Amino acid sequence: MYELGVVYRNIQRTDRETADGLAALGSATVHEAMGRVGLLKPYMRPIYAGAQVSGTAVTVLLHPGDNWMMHVAAEQIQPGDIVVAAITAECTDGYFGDLLATSFKARGARALVIDAGVRDVKTLTEMQFPVWSKAISSKGTIKATIGSVNIPVVCAGMLVTPGDVIVADDDGVVCVPRAMAAKTLEAARKREANEGEKRDKLASGVLGLDMYKMREPLAAAGLKYID
Amino acid sequence: MYELGVVYRNIQRTDRETADGLAALGSATVHEAMGRVGLLKPYMRPIYAGAQVSGTAVTVLLHPGDNWMMHVAAEQIQPGDIVVAAITAECTDGYFGDLLATSFKARGARALVIDAGVRDVKTLTEMQFPVWSKAISSKGTIKATIGSVNIPVVCAGMLVTPGDVIVADDDGVVCVPRAMAAKTLEAARKREANEGEKRDKLASGVLGLDMYKMREPLAAAGLKYID
Amino acid sequence: MYELGVVYRNIQRTDRETADGLAALGSATVHEAMGRVGLLKPYMRPIYAGAQVSGTAVTVLLHPGDNWMMHVAAEQIQPGDIVVAAITAECTDGYFGDLLATSFKARGARALVIDAGVRDVKTLTEMQFPVWSKAISSKGTIKATIGSVNIPVVCAGMLVTPGDVIVADDDGVVCVPRAMAAKTLEAARKREANEGEKRDKLASGVLGLDMYKMREPLAAAGLKYID
Amino acid sequence: MYELGVVYRNIQRTDRETADGLAALGSATVHEAMGRVGLLKPYMRPIYAGAQVSGTAVTVLLHPGDNWMMHVAAEQIQPGDIVVAAITAECTDGYFGDLLATSFKARGARALVIDAGVRDVKTLTEMQFPVWSKAISSKGTIKATIGSVNIPVVCAGMLVTPGDVIVADDDGVVCVPRAMAAKTLEAARKREANEGEKRDKLASGVLGLDMYKMREPLAAAGLKYID
Amino acid sequence: MYELGVVYRNIQRTDRETADGLAALGSATVHEAMGRVGLLKPYMRPIYAGAQVSGTAVTVLLHPGDNWMMHVAAEQIQPGDIVVAAITAECTDGYFGDLLATSFKARGARALVIDAGVRDVKTLTEMQFPVWSKAISSKGTIKATIGSVNIPVVCAGMLVTPGDVIVADDDGVVCVPRAMAAKTLEAARKREANEGEKRDKLASGVLGLDMYKMREPLAAAGLKYID
Amino acid sequence: MYELGVVYRNIQRTDRETADGLAALGSATVHEAMGRVGLLKPYMRPIYAGAQVSGTAVTVLLHPGDNWMMHVAAEQIQPGDIVVAAITAECTDGYFGDLLATSFKARGARALVIDAGVRDVKTLTEMQFPVWSKAISSKGTIKATIGSVNIPVVCAGMLVTPGDVIVADDDGVVCVPRAMAAKTLEAARKREANEGEKRDKLASGVLGLDMYKMREPLAAAGLKYID
Repeated sequence: MYELGVVYRNIQRTDRETADGLAALGSATVHEAMGRVGLLKPYMRPIYAGAQVSGTAVTVLLHPGDNWMMHVAAEQIQPGDIVVAAITAECTDGYFGDLLATSFKARGARALVIDAGVRDVKTLTEMQFPVWSKAISSKGTIKATIGSVNIPVVCAGMLVTPGDVIVADDDGVVCVPRAMAAKTLEAARKREANEGEKRDKLASGVLGLDMYKMREPLAAAGLKYID
Repeated sequence: MYELGVVYRNIQRTDRETADGLAALGSATVHEAMGRVGLLKPYMRPIYAGAQVSGTAVTVLLHPGDNWMMHVAAEQIQPGDIVVAAITAECTDGYFGDLLATSFKARGARALVIDAGVRDVKTLTEMQFPVWSKAISSKGTIKATIGSVNIPVVCAGMLVTPGDVIVADDDGVVCVPRAMAAKTLEAARKREANEGEKRDKLASGVLGLDMYKMREPLAAAGLKYID
Repeated sequence: MYELGVVYRNIQRTDRETADGLAALGSATVHEAMGRVGLLKPYMRPIYAGAQVSGTAVTVLLHPGDNWMMHVAAEQIQPGDIVVAAITAECTDGYFGDLLATSFKARGARALVIDAGVRDVKTLTEMQFPVWSKAISSKGTIKATIGSVNIPVVCAGMLVTPGDVIVADDDGVVCVPRAMAAKTLEAARKREANEGEKRDKLASGVLGLDMYKMREPLAAAGLKYID
Repeated sequence: MYELGVVYRNIQRTDRETADGLAALGSATVHEAMGRVGLLKPYMRPIYAGAQVSGTAVTVLLHPGDNWMMHVAAEQIQPGDIVVAAITAECTDGYFGDLLATSFKARGARALVIDAGVRDVKTLTEMQFPVWSKAISSKGTIKATIGSVNIPVVCAGMLVTPGDVIVADDDGVVCVPRAMAAKTLEAARKREANEGEKRDKLASGVLGLDMYKMREPLAAAGLKYID
Repeated sequence: MYELGVVYRNIQRTDRETADGLAALGSATVHEAMGRVGLLKPYMRPIYAGAQVSGTAVTVLLHPGDNWMMHVAAEQIQPGDIVVAAITAECTDGYFGDLLATSFKARGARALVIDAGVRDVKTLTEMQFPVWSKAISSKGTIKATIGSVNIPVVCAGMLVTPGDVIVADDDGVVCVPRAMAAKTLEAARKREANEGEKRDKLASGVLGLDMYKMREPLAAAGLKYID
Repeated sequence: MYELGVVYRNIQRTDRETADGLAALGSATVHEAMGRVGLLKPYMRPIYAGAQVSGTAVTVLLHPGDNWMMHVAAEQIQPGDIVVAAITAECTDGYFGDLLATSFKARGARALVIDAGVRDVKTLTEMQFPVWSKAISSKGTIKATIGSVNIPVVCAGMLVTPGDVIVADDDGVVCVPRAMAAKTLEAARKREANEGEKRDKLASGVLGLDMYKMREPLAAAGLKYID
């Protein structure tokens, strides 16, 4: 349940270096490093391919068809933030377009993650302002009802607390709680470090069956080969 | 993000009288009394019509296709609880059937709310053990991976904290945070108290237009009648 | 595209006898009698089983999350009408509950057909006020924006003009344009008249293959039997 | 891929006693007894609650919007069969109504399982002819293109071979291959035999944690209790 | 409800200059200029990014799985038209490919908007013939049943009358009724004219809160800032 | 129903020349040449535009959230194969990423077709290893339960037998049974051969109505032109 009508001005952001460091690892590796949790639902898709970002979450809670609080959220953005927008009910309207993107970018936002629709995607692509959203829609919104900024929100099925780290790329969006961010960065880097060597082996034709020593457990599980 | 592998034994439940009092008011009135928030997504449907319950939330976090933690949750149930089950990814498997329902009922649970599937619905209906779920499915689950019990979870898009009040009926499911429960009960009762009189007026043919004095604001908003 | 902010007071309703006569034939037969057109999308489902109605359409255009115009529509209802509610964008909110149903019923409405959500379904079932809807949801609506009453609307993919006949039952909802209503009633009755005899034959074990003389055309189409 | 334009007259049905014996066990138990496979997708829902059947599959492959082959299938029905209808593309049209149900029933069919729509559901309910379908729709079909009868088909994601056993109830639909039917019946009965005792224990308040001796493996998996 | 089996040869197209002028403004601005109406549902997506067109609607009503009328529609195309295709029931088949696109292009069509599927999208992309559709599918269609050309149709939830203006881009598709086209063009241009200045201000760091003077109404609505 | 826990090492692949020859024709033409059957459901989408491949099917059956058998499948790949992955229940997890792609590529696989999710799509795009999938998701999988390799599977609604030919492009995925491959290749080439001439005619402004001699059958079907 949400607290309505409030804007928290002072949030505890994950430290910049940690938050920034997670971008290079990508959503899949970071999610694995956390123990395979933290992902927003896979219906969240980037409006253009290739963007890969991380940043600290500024959250905003909106009502269906109403983007008033986006402007309130803009003021709370600090350089390196990613705005995470949740809606109190299912909606695919286009809450965000090139004007808001211009404003968010001017404030230092790196991306928007919104559990609803977005528009002006051609211009946003030209601006290289990445958005992960549930829908693309021309449908406009009104400015009539207040929600909240910087409260914990549920976005695409995941709880996001202001200051958490958001990592987003072509594979999806993951939220790393502030308290776990440093440990996750470390674990993700370790994971990543192993991958190069594995990739080389696999590229040379070594099988995962052998590299991961799976033949025995597979046989123990009852797998039978038939010629 | 979720804390995995933990069971919180001592949760602060909303006081019994308040939690029980909300059932009679129903999910729609309670949701309105909270300021039109708190609802789980409308894909959550009862397995049979007519059940109307409230109770204190015991939460459980499960993995896709794995209902092991349901048995862990059973032990934490106290009379008057409603189990709220969240899954770490989308799943429609049948996590819950007549055996678990027998166990839950023996522990005093009033209902299950699960963001996945349920089975044995014929028997559950005969037992009058109500379930609100995303799906009905014969698909069985395994018992291989641990989740958590009594941590805050996101179920059908809504954050549910252990001890919150769950109100569920044919219209859907609403979560009332413990801190708001008493105030919400009071507000919902007030709302309800007005309804009888309104219903009588409307039944006698009085129009909402007149009863709510809407004609003037509608005209002010530009509504035009054409003969 | 819709004309916004208008209420047409005088609509040409299909004559009562024709409109009433279509109920007994049901949505499937009526749709066949029109040449297999006129159906609203099959996601429109009754809130309880067994209701079968027909009536003249009073239409209302609503905005997402806003049921203000429902009250305006109530005044335009005459006995024998069915209210058809369209929304300017996708929405599953519960626009209609027991109070509005009481008012609609008092005005003589026979049913509601709404391309959105409905609530208080338990009470509506007890009142035997049938509703065909896209969703059931406790989610409440506001009263802030004006739409229109008695303009042509698109409901669940079908164009409905005020005064058309709506036929609805467990199989779905069909709209019969006023100009086609009399002819459709006649055609539907003819269709129905043949069915009793066919049913008796089929019940006695006669095959449709023989009754409809399909064996030859099937062979001509290339069907082969393999022993 | 399907063989089109053929009707196999002689199929090897699972023996009657085995096929009939599976009904009492239900889809969930049968699916577990087979090793948790064989289920059709959970979007397949009964048109009314409470039916529980098993029978031997007569299959029919239909084209979208065309139910011609239903009449061809009717002739191949023997008492104790369940017709399984697959469509070559997604379709929700109402392929089957009371006339075909009368014919199928006269031939001895016990049910229809169709990966599309059905209509006349009120009459089918009165006739107590159960149908599991993807949709309910008044939309009629034509008779223009030939498909096949008694070829292996994919229905709701599952391969069904003519003569296999279909078990269907409120929880869903499961297909038991003929070669596995006898063994599955035996395994399902064993499973079922254990359930009564378990249910009694659970009803008396014994926990699954203890009954299934889960405490140790849970601890081994790392589960921690926090007071 | 639709009139079947007719082709209207003479339709009143919106004047060319107005119809052409709307392309540059885009679907979002045009929809706002009309009062936030007129949009087709957001599931309508372009087959490739970057196309932005407007044109006069030639409509065609098709049956599921049958594209016969596409050839009839081709003859009615005049340079500057956009073909709008509606289907009498849900269908995702590939009604349109490179041959029809070649024909449509030769007749002067600028685009296709179809509430179903399309195929040969690689070739269509190379030809730069834009299509907005519900699906992409290789599934072929037959030529067996007649529909209509240039009757009012419902496409993706929106009523489109022949001669209306269609505006389509990466954000979606909007339909501007002929009678409103000139006024809408004017209003949309005004809207657009303001945007440059606003964008500059926002880019310089001015907040929407100040530019739109929102601080006072937000406070009046009860918004509270918490440090 | 599936045989679990087996790996068939020797499958009969369609001969290389036939399998390779189908790529150039594309999924739509191949599906038409087979009599408009064989397509996987249109929700199967390529992770990047422009890939067009054909190859012999190596099949793998996986459990939800478990990609263990992918490594078993890798060993069975021969140059020119396309891996077809089916899941025993609905799942959108990311079963496949850059490491497995490296391994598959090293073994000679041309593509993956998976009725679930895939991840590392940016890297897969850079590697130009095409995947057709139901979803894109960072969600990782475990390695705990055995499935099967090279058994017949149902993937996206279509039965795929090991050794069949898979043809995939931007329009979708089609499966050509081994026994039909040579005949299909011939028929598809004939179909293709006619298209150039047709395209030229249509490009010159000749109407399909005339080229296909449709005017008479349309009139016979009752089509009326209204001026």
